Amino acid sequence: MNSTISSNQRCRIAVDAMGGDYAPLNAVLGAVEAYNHSDSFDLLLVGKETEIKKVISENNLDFNSENIINADEVIEMGESPASSLKTKKKSSIVIGAQLVRDKNSDAFVSAGNTGAMMAASTLITGRIKSVGRPTIGAEMPNVNGICYLYDVGSSKDSKPVHLFEYAVMGSIFAKEMGGIINPKIGVLSMGEEEGKGNEVSEAASRLLKQTKLNFIGNVEGRDILAGEVDVIVCDGYVGNVLLKFGEAVPKLLKYLLKQTADTNFLDKLKIGITKGTLKKALKSLDYQEYGGVPLLGINGISIIGHGSSTPKAFKNMVLRADEMYQKNLVQKLTNSIIEYSNQIDKAEING
Amino acid sequence: MNSTISSNQRCRIAVDAMGGDYAPLNAVLGAVEAYNHSDSFDLLLVGKETEIKKVISENNLDFNSENIINADEVIEMGESPASSLKTKKKSSIVIGAQLVRDKNSDAFVSAGNTGAMMAASTLITGRIKSVGRPTIGAEMPNVNGICYLYDVGSSKDSKPVHLFEYAVMGSIFAKEMGGIINPKIGVLSMGEEEGKGNEVSEAASRLLKQTKLNFIGNVEGRDILAGEVDVIVCDGYVGNVLLKFGEAVPKLLKYLLKQTADTNFLDKLKIGITKGTLKKALKSLDYQEYGGVPLLGINGISIIGHGSSTPKAFKNMVLRADEMYQKNLVQKLTNSIIEYSNQIDKAEING
Repeated sequence: MNSTISSNQRCRIAVDAMGGDYAPLNAVLGAVEAYNHSDSFDLLLVGKETEIKKVISENNLDFNSENIINADEVIEMGESPASSLKTKKKSSIVIGAQLVRDKNSDAFVSAGNTGAMMAASTLITGRIKSVGRPTIGAEMPNVNGICYLYDVGSSKDSKPVHLFEYAVMGSIFAKEMGGIINPKIGVLSMGEEEGKGNEVSEAASRLLKQTKLNFIGNVEGRDILAGEVDVIVCDGYVGNVLLKFGEAVPKLLKYLLKQTADTNFLDKLKIGITKGTLKKALKSLDYQEYGGVPLLGINGISIIGHGSSTPKAFKNMVLRADEMYQKNLVQKLTNSIIEYSNQIDKAEING
Repeated sequence: MNSTISSNQRCRIAVDAMGGDYAPLNAVLGAVEAYNHSDSFDLLLVGKETEIKKVISENNLDFNSENIINADEVIEMGESPASSLKTKKKSSIVIGAQLVRDKNSDAFVSAGNTGAMMAASTLITGRIKSVGRPTIGAEMPNVNGICYLYDVGSSKDSKPVHLFEYAVMGSIFAKEMGGIINPKIGVLSMGEEEGKGNEVSEAASRLLKQTKLNFIGNVEGRDILAGEVDVIVCDGYVGNVLLKFGEAVPKLLKYLLKQTADTNFLDKLKIGITKGTLKKALKSLDYQEYGGVPLLGINGISIIGHGSSTPKAFKNMVLRADEMYQKNLVQKLTNSIIEYSNQIDKAEING
C-alpha cells in the first residue's frame, strides 16, 4: 500500500486555540477532549505556544506538544476581516487556513473573528472550483427535526447562481450529515405560487427546476418551522436577519411570561414551572449541541464557532469536522456542483 | 358654518361585507357592533344586499338598510388580483375602493382577497401624491411594547426611495397611532455598523441620514424584538418572510413542549400549566386585538383584515379606521412625505 495515501487517510484537524471569548482555555479543553474521545484523527492546536502549553499543563491534559503550531498573532473580534488578514500574517486564523491550503491539515476549526475566518477560508484556503460563493447554513428546528437554511452567512446581494449553489451544497450536507434521503429543496418566497419571490429568487427557481435536485418550488417564512421542506435557500441578508430574529424569540418569551405574572403565589409558581419546561423544550436550539457551522464551498473543511463557545461546543465542532472528513464531504460537494451545473442551460446561469 | 365642510367632518366608513372566510356574517356583526359602540362615524356595508339584510334581520341588528351599498359580485380569495379588478367591476372590493376615490367614504375596510384589496386601493382609490409605493406594516411585540416593521406587504424588490417612504409613513403612524414621541427608525441589516446592509438598504440609509427623522442607522434581526427601535424598514420580501416566520413560532413551541412530556403525571401537569401560561403571555400577539392593518400611502383610509377575521377583529378594524380619520392621518402622511423629501438631495433619490 502506498504510504502517502495511507497517511492521508487519517484525518488531521487544526483548531484555532486563540479563537473565542475564553481562549485559549475553552478551545484547548474541548479540542483535546474530542481528540481523546476518538482515535480517527490527529489534532493540531494553532496559537501562542506558551499559552497553549500552560492550559495543557494546568489541566493535566494528555497532548503531545509537537502538535502545537505556533502562531504569534491573534486577530481580535472587532478587527476588520479584510485588513487583518494582510496585517496579521502570523495570526492563528491565517496559519490555520494555510495549513488546509497546503494539505497539512484537512480541517480548520475556529471560534474567532467570524468575518476573518470566512475571508481566510475563502481567500487563503480557497474555494472549490466552480463555487462562486461559499455558504454558511443554519439548522432551524421544526416538527420533523431540522430544516437547513442557506445562506445565513452574510453573503449579501446574492445572484441567482449563488442560490443554486447554496441549494446543491445544502442538499448534499442535509443528506450526508443530516441523514435526509433526497432532501426537499425550496426557495424562500412570499407565497407558494410562482411569481411570489423577488427577482433573484424567481431566477434561482428557474435554474433549480432544470436540475434533478428534489426541488419543490417556493416556500414561505412559516415553512422554515413547519417540517415540509428540508433545505431552504435565500440571500444571506435575508437568512441572517431571520436567524437573529429567531435567536431573540426565547428572550422575548421570557419577558412576556414575566409580564403575565400577577402578584399571587399560584401565578408565580406557574411562571416558574413554565420557564423550566420551556428551557427543556428549547434545548434542541442550543448551539452547544452542534458547536459551530461549516462554511461549505471551501476546498477543505472550515468550521466557524460562536464567540462564546464552551469546551463542549469545541468538542462537537471537532467531532463534526472529523465526520465531514470521514464522509468525504468536500469531494462530494465538488462533484455535485459540477454534476448539477451541467444540467442547467449555461446561458441562463450567466444571464 | 359651511354645510359641506360640516358633513365632511363626520367620518364615513365602508366595510366589505363579503370579505373574509365567514362573510357576510362576521363582517356585518363586527362592523355594526363598532357602529353602535361609537357615534363618531357613519357606516356603509358593501356587498350583496339580500345577504346583508338577512344577517341584519336574523341577528336583530339595529342598522338602516339605506346604508347598504349593493355589490353583486365577490372577488374570491384565490383569484388573481390584477385580472379580478377588471373582470369584476361590480365586486364589493372595486365598489368600496371607488367610494373612497369619489369621496363618498373616508375609509374602506376589507378582509377579502388581500392582493385585490391592495391593488384596488392603489389603482382605484389611488396613492398619495409623491408616494411611489404604499406599504403595510406589522406590529411586532417587544419588551417595550411594539416595534413597527415596514414593509411586510409583499412590496418586493423595493428601491431605496421606497424604504425612505416606508420610514416616513411608519414614523408618522407610530407617533399618531402608537403614541410614540419622536420614533426611533432603523434600517434592517446584518450588523449595526455601516456597510452591513445590502445595496438597497445601504442606499436607503444614505437618504434617511439627510432628513430630520430620528434615524438611528442599521439594526439587526434581533432588534425587532429587543425594544430599542420603534420603526424598522426593509424590503417587503424580507418583511413578509419575517412576519410569517414569527407567526409560526407559537406552533413550533407547542410541538416542542409536547415532545418534552414524559409519560409521568407530573410532567404532563407541567406541560399543561406551561401551555396555559404561554397562551396568556402570547395574547398580545393576537391579531384580533388590532383587527387588521392599514395600507399607508393611499389617498384615503384602507384597512386590510385577515381572512379568518372574527366579529371582534372587524369591530377593531372599523374603530381603527375611525381613529385614523379623527387623527387626520392621511393628510399628515401627505404633508410628511413632502416635508422629508425636501430634505434630501433630489439627485440621490432618483439615482
